Amino acid sequence: MPKTINVGMIGYAFMGKAHSAAYRDVPRYFPELDLQPEMKAICGRNEKAVREAAEQFGWDSYETDAMALINRTDIQVVDVSSPGWAHRDQVIAAAKAGKHIICEKPIANNLADARAMAKAVTEAGVSSFVMFNYRRVPAVALARQMIEAGEIGEIYHIRACYLQDWIADPQFPMVWRLDKELAGSGALGDIGSHIIDLGRFLVGELEEVCATTKTFIKERPTAPGSKETGTVTVDDAAAWLAHFKNGALGTFEATRFARGRKNANRFEIFGSKGSLAFDFEEMNKLQFWSAADSEKFQGFREILVTESGHPYMDAWWPPGHIIGYQHTFVNALRDFFDAISKGVKPSPDINDGVAVQAALEAIAQSSDTRSWVRLDDL
Amino acid sequence: MPKTINVGMIGYAFMGKAHSAAYRDVPRYFPELDLQPEMKAICGRNEKAVREAAEQFGWDSYETDAMALINRTDIQVVDVSSPGWAHRDQVIAAAKAGKHIICEKPIANNLADARAMAKAVTEAGVSSFVMFNYRRVPAVALARQMIEAGEIGEIYHIRACYLQDWIADPQFPMVWRLDKELAGSGALGDIGSHIIDLGRFLVGELEEVCATTKTFIKERPTAPGSKETGTVTVDDAAAWLAHFKNGALGTFEATRFARGRKNANRFEIFGSKGSLAFDFEEMNKLQFWSAADSEKFQGFREILVTESGHPYMDAWWPPGHIIGYQHTFVNALRDFFDAISKGVKPSPDINDGVAVQAALEAIAQSSDTRSWVRLDDL
Amino acid sequence: MPKTINVGMIGYAFMGKAHSAAYRDVPRYFPELDLQPEMKAICGRNEKAVREAAEQFGWDSYETDAMALINRTDIQVVDVSSPGWAHRDQVIAAAKAGKHIICEKPIANNLADARAMAKAVTEAGVSSFVMFNYRRVPAVALARQMIEAGEIGEIYHIRACYLQDWIADPQFPMVWRLDKELAGSGALGDIGSHIIDLGRFLVGELEEVCATTKTFIKERPTAPGSKETGTVTVDDAAAWLAHFKNGALGTFEATRFARGRKNANRFEIFGSKGSLAFDFEEMNKLQFWSAADSEKFQGFREILVTESGHPYMDAWWPPGHIIGYQHTFVNALRDFFDAISKGVKPSPDINDGVAVQAALEAIAQSSDTRSWVRLDDL
Amino acid sequence: MPKTINVGMIGYAFMGKAHSAAYRDVPRYFPELDLQPEMKAICGRNEKAVREAAEQFGWDSYETDAMALINRTDIQVVDVSSPGWAHRDQVIAAAKAGKHIICEKPIANNLADARAMAKAVTEAGVSSFVMFNYRRVPAVALARQMIEAGEIGEIYHIRACYLQDWIADPQFPMVWRLDKELAGSGALGDIGSHIIDLGRFLVGELEEVCATTKTFIKERPTAPGSKETGTVTVDDAAAWLAHFKNGALGTFEATRFARGRKNANRFEIFGSKGSLAFDFEEMNKLQFWSAADSEKFQGFREILVTESGHPYMDAWWPPGHIIGYQHTFVNALRDFFDAISKGVKPSPDINDGVAVQAALEAIAQSSDTRSWVRLDDL
Repeated sequence: MPKTINVGMIGYAFMGKAHSAAYRDVPRYFPELDLQPEMKAICGRNEKAVREAAEQFGWDSYETDAMALINRTDIQVVDVSSPGWAHRDQVIAAAKAGKHIICEKPIANNLADARAMAKAVTEAGVSSFVMFNYRRVPAVALARQMIEAGEIGEIYHIRACYLQDWIADPQFPMVWRLDKELAGSGALGDIGSHIIDLGRFLVGELEEVCATTKTFIKERPTAPGSKETGTVTVDDAAAWLAHFKNGALGTFEATRFARGRKNANRFEIFGSKGSLAFDFEEMNKLQFWSAADSEKFQGFREILVTESGHPYMDAWWPPGHIIGYQHTFVNALRDFFDAISKGVKPSPDINDGVAVQAALEAIAQSSDTRSWVRLDDL
Repeated sequence: MPKTINVGMIGYAFMGKAHSAAYRDVPRYFPELDLQPEMKAICGRNEKAVREAAEQFGWDSYETDAMALINRTDIQVVDVSSPGWAHRDQVIAAAKAGKHIICEKPIANNLADARAMAKAVTEAGVSSFVMFNYRRVPAVALARQMIEAGEIGEIYHIRACYLQDWIADPQFPMVWRLDKELAGSGALGDIGSHIIDLGRFLVGELEEVCATTKTFIKERPTAPGSKETGTVTVDDAAAWLAHFKNGALGTFEATRFARGRKNANRFEIFGSKGSLAFDFEEMNKLQFWSAADSEKFQGFREILVTESGHPYMDAWWPPGHIIGYQHTFVNALRDFFDAISKGVKPSPDINDGVAVQAALEAIAQSSDTRSWVRLDDL
Repeated sequence: MPKTINVGMIGYAFMGKAHSAAYRDVPRYFPELDLQPEMKAICGRNEKAVREAAEQFGWDSYETDAMALINRTDIQVVDVSSPGWAHRDQVIAAAKAGKHIICEKPIANNLADARAMAKAVTEAGVSSFVMFNYRRVPAVALARQMIEAGEIGEIYHIRACYLQDWIADPQFPMVWRLDKELAGSGALGDIGSHIIDLGRFLVGELEEVCATTKTFIKERPTAPGSKETGTVTVDDAAAWLAHFKNGALGTFEATRFARGRKNANRFEIFGSKGSLAFDFEEMNKLQFWSAADSEKFQGFREILVTESGHPYMDAWWPPGHIIGYQHTFVNALRDFFDAISKGVKPSPDINDGVAVQAALEAIAQSSDTRSWVRLDDL
Repeated sequence: MPKTINVGMIGYAFMGKAHSAAYRDVPRYFPELDLQPEMKAICGRNEKAVREAAEQFGWDSYETDAMALINRTDIQVVDVSSPGWAHRDQVIAAAKAGKHIICEKPIANNLADARAMAKAVTEAGVSSFVMFNYRRVPAVALARQMIEAGEIGEIYHIRACYLQDWIADPQFPMVWRLDKELAGSGALGDIGSHIIDLGRFLVGELEEVCATTKTFIKERPTAPGSKETGTVTVDDAAAWLAHFKNGALGTFEATRFARGRKNANRFEIFGSKGSLAFDFEEMNKLQFWSAADSEKFQGFREILVTESGHPYMDAWWPPGHIIGYQHTFVNALRDFFDAISKGVKPSPDINDGVAVQAALEAIAQSSDTRSWVRLDDL
């Protein structure tokens, strides 16, 4: 029988739903794991809503005060899936309470907060984990394995973008994600943070960036159909050039104004021996070009990443029976509990969260100052 | 609070795992459903294995005798996910016991059995449901809606195939699916039944078929690496031409020898006003061509079927956050329990299962007699 | 300086235009060829039209009587690009006149004619060449090389189709191609002949076929907008199952009713070691799956067939600078003149044309008799 | 009978071959054009080579001195397809000699030269035309028509790249294109100029750019297999951010180090009402997403741009019979001679060439100074 560990989660919106599903599924698909989560408590400020969420998502109990949840003695893991502005205090409190921490991305609304959080985690000696779930797409995990195995050689280029279109309509109303006070930034932090993380995961550390951001629609209805308008204080889109410490050149773009692109988290990576390409909208596939192939038969190979030998896939279905977005969270949590069980550091951890936050800060600063910003200077 | 209904399931292999996941998920993603399943008992002949399956998949109890499970008074729904040869007796017993029935496809190993099952179900007045889960792929459900709405007009053609490659290697050993006694047929019944069902779902009733089947590798090792061989008594591949009652022309092919195709359940449907195309390996997409589009801008449109307005998708994730194979079972069970709750006939039911079985029989007979076979003559 | 050989061509419509372009281009792109065509004369029954065609397409002179052209002493090669019903007499006359013959496909409107033509050619000892131009798509030629080199092993399956939609509109009027007297058959002979030829080129000789044909729209306006209608006497679509002599199983379909498919001449070939797939609408690409690839990285490889090492491509442009439909004719004629120059038999020749005609006849007969037809029985 | 105009062309390498083919083809495919080219003379410094080129490509005569060609009284159009360093003097001389000018891109190796050339052309009152041939890809021309018709509304984004891989191998030797003295720049001028032009053609005028360039391999063999090395003095890759005057945001990248990408001249354009996407490796296709489509059926539409109503396609083949790279030159020359015939300005002309050159200069300067550069400041 595996041991169990009790989890308390703050937040019950999109990420709360996704994480809950993953907690439920970890023991079902990864029964061999030595340490399995128990869904002890969920937390939200609206009692009626959080009570219903507890019921629907399968949590044993609920809290309406985050600090109360954090300090419950029957909880060993705190999952911070609240909005970004709330992360800092919750993570610091959880660290001080000696809890292991899972935190949604980006970990904070600014770099200073992120560093304070990492300091608290380090001082407390607890484990931390940041939910850059796209690392756990099997195709992306395979890409990482291939890069580490030298399949594409030295990396020259990464072209990454994350394209959505959910606010392209000027009549789409103000929401908290369009308010800098609450969200920190717009497309940049929300989806740009994912491609920054994938850049670090697949290529390496950033040396410097040069960025521009844009807000195409500056005034929006305060509510659907309303004549009253509010001001958008975050970026609708961000684009940046990047030099990596290993010499690779990167181009990145995050936008919510790409009509027809729904969740196009994509990359192309070109190396001295081969290339890789990925698009989340076809998340079960990885494109691979190899200079080692016979010259006459070279071409981008579409690997359907559903074989039992592919990362995580042994837990799921037979070849060709594709998986979806939510499986990335199951895979991620499997790795987290596996690490805790084995006493090793989960990855990516709070320091990876800080590194991404530094990139976000560098990008924002570069956009403001219209100049290149070195990450080491922050 | 929704009412609940107790389910007992026979089988714990691939389909048992998939159905179990779906029973667990129905209440999580479709909480508004008036009638929710309770996972009461699972049944298998190997006690150790079924006990572990009960634990891992989340069933309250287990049985080692199918009839015992069927006759448990605390069970109202019997899910027959056992191998095909076992379906007949279990379905008939469940019907006689007054249980609602969910049955995996194809419902039987021959048409006589299928008809006997349908007779028993009808006489008992219980509800029945056949797990043609591909109908519940949102893209396929959307295709059906579009056809019903006249978007592609009168249908001229369906080109359907189901391509896999898991036994293409001659060293792949004998398994029960390669033994006619146990499996009834090979690629034909296992995957051909799905495209027959999709043909009925999307185009209409079959008039007649002309078929051929092929067994490419006739002798296989009895076990991996074994020198001893056994004889494959089922088809490796089946292909058939079909005329539909409404005048449409169909070509169909099911094979386990299509190297590199893992689960390519595909169709192209061409009508007087437009066309549709689908490939399960990209299950979140539906291709649509419309003669109503401005002539200069006509082209196949790739609909990413993940919008909240698309069938079933409101229950899942935001646009572009794709779903996978297992979600088709959740969607299917949602519809089943919804139908039971509302007192309407689930669809597809046992009679649809019989219709597919009739097509399978017609195809097999056509292959044997090398002639066209009318389904009404069976 | 290369030697030259004088060509006379009968026909100046679509194929006349395409062949003319190819005759002009052969010396430009294949200057190393020892024998180059001279465009001596073009022939058509309408003097004004053929005079203009001669001018526009670059022919030195014109004739209005095919027999006059065939018997001109300054002509050594006769290109029969007239409608199908006219082929027989022209080819036989050309053979008797001792001319080398290029003939459009299908070579005749029935098998008896085709055999008479082949007999005349053989008795005269002249060279013959049938314009199955799709063999000269570089991607198709590469596919053939790969099959011959054993890259995909023993062939189990070919799935071929040729989908068009130019008469899907019921208001599209009668044209000669819809009249059996003139065209012999409909989609079957016109485009089905191409996939029959590709099947022979890539897989091998046919053993037997079982077919059905369909005419969806039986009455059409005699002219655009006319109230008067004429009767379509050919097939709108044809589909057939096939067994090859080497044991491969084939499914084939040719239709003019596939809305949105413009020239989808496609095949998928599955073998014991690998697979190939092609679609003319992306004619510069060949899909290749190899069991020899490392298991974890297997996938269909999209070969962009534009490298200088690929068939014919050295004559054209740098990698990635794609070529089009008309280049297939240039490549074909290059091979024809190369063969003549070297004194070897061009391929495909009139006997290949007969073999395709036999398949067409078998398919038509099978559709009529609703039974399997062996080609050797014809 | 159309009038004719005599052309003299300088250069006989890749572009010389491509232009020659186009001169030959214009009268064949566009016979209705009032003014048709006569291929009067070709010019190159190596007499043997240029004599052979004249013969193979179909020119009446040849010259070995560019100025001699330019000043021949029987020549009215001078086509400058020589290497970039030679353009300035040749264009200025041709202008002074009163000749119409066709010039390959980029028109010069620096902005000062480009401006001097434009001044000479303007003063001489001759017509000019720059061979940005990708504007004449039917799919690109259609994109322009759609943008002008408002199909995608106000443009927010353009993502453009031009990816090749022909020097990714470090053993690929030094060639003139890698020498700044001769080539001006590397990937930037050679292929970056094309995407700059497409940006102007499809989106509008650039306001400012911020760029970086990279030379991954700095030393290369002087010849294939040589131990001696030379220094690469141009960029292997260039990437830039751009703001357009109309508010659109652009990201651009040109590289010769994208393994597996052969001629991936691509763009995605996102507007308020729709989107367009293109990849030259599939040059007969244009992707189109429209917010005007019924919400449930929205998706990127793949327009096969081969219909007779599509730009230029009436001259070519039936729908689905795709065209290739060289056809872009035929289409371009058709437009040039049509403009000359009608007495209107050809487009793009020398001033468009200057605008692209200004962008190239701004990009190079931005890369050097690591700052944003406004084009109006140059």
